[in-house]
Amino acid sequence: MKILLIGAEGTLGRAVVDELGARHDIVRAGRSHGDLRLDLRDKASVQAALNKLGRVDAIASAAGKLAFAPLLELTDEQWALSLQDKLMGQVNLALLGVPHLNDGGSITLTTGILSQEPILTGVTATLVNRALEGFVVGAALELPRALRINAVSPGLLSESVASFGEWFRGFEPVPAARAALGFSRSIEGADTGKVYAYV
Amino acid sequence: MKILLIGAEGTLGRAVVDELGARHDIVRAGRSHGDLRLDLRDKASVQAALNKLGRVDAIASAAGKLAFAPLLELTDEQWALSLQDKLMGQVNLALLGVPHLNDGGSITLTTGILSQEPILTGVTATLVNRALEGFVVGAALELPRALRINAVSPGLLSESVASFGEWFRGFEPVPAARAALGFSRSIEGADTGKVYAYV
Repeated sequence: MKILLIGAEGTLGRAVVDELGARHDIVRAGRSHGDLRLDLRDKASVQAALNKLGRVDAIASAAGKLAFAPLLELTDEQWALSLQDKLMGQVNLALLGVPHLNDGGSITLTTGILSQEPILTGVTATLVNRALEGFVVGAALELPRALRINAVSPGLLSESVASFGEWFRGFEPVPAARAALGFSRSIEGADTGKVYAYV
Repeated sequence: MKILLIGAEGTLGRAVVDELGARHDIVRAGRSHGDLRLDLRDKASVQAALNKLGRVDAIASAAGKLAFAPLLELTDEQWALSLQDKLMGQVNLALLGVPHLNDGGSITLTTGILSQEPILTGVTATLVNRALEGFVVGAALELPRALRINAVSPGLLSESVASFGEWFRGFEPVPAARAALGFSRSIEGADTGKVYAYV
């Protein structure tokens, strides 16, 4: 299969490449690295990258920024970034990607454990991750040509404990290689409208 | 209690007034009707209305517009309306409302059954309603002064079957008076971070 992977240079993206790269042709895309450059916040850049790419069998995103801050200190800019990047960036990628997918192809987005397990300073993540899961189950009903869509919801990645662990005290870390299995299930399986949680 | 109710003239809002009006002082607010005028999409109008109001014991919203359309026909404008009105309109109402609430006061937002039961043309609703439920569970962790926040998630209202029933074939209608009980539980109870589903 030919797979477009956004965020291929991130912690999760690298694990997805490790899991799927030997069996499939992965086109790596990102804001500042990769075979294709695109910014999820900029629909025109996503469209341009897709046009360059041609048709693929899978579009996968391991990308998406959120702003973390105490509830009552979140600025309009931080809300807008969270909605425009991780949420609508991935939604737009999915919708713009539809005409570029071969029949039966798949879309795989990334949410995260905070959808179900809120933490202090994490309200944008709980909101955005649940919104993405809603998009996945809603979109699965309407995709044409047997196209499929799923989400992977990882817990705190073991590789990220040093950077983010202090906000996630008591959470059991998940190796990125485990969460990468969700991309395999979505891309190489037959599911649609599913959220693969690795917690 | 003094209760600010947004959307008091809607089907659900009128049922909330019927349920709570005899026991409490309800200030009715809306875009085109009511004691106070405000537009959820316009933060300045929400702030101005709250400033006029002074302090209350509860802020409740039975309002929020969404755009319904087939997944692949949704325009940027329809996505923006859905995110700005029902989602961020209610989020901003909650956050701007915090300084206007007496200690132990409550915020009650409205989501809807499509969060859990997607329908054709309803992806914005599934996305936005889940996002709102995420906001409620995340915000509940961080609200100061024993403030509380909950959501009411009604099914298709019996009173709306004539208008919207064709998109909800097979859904069991719910009288608005039943869904209004969720506002009573949120406002007159002690819960926080809960979603009251009436399906």
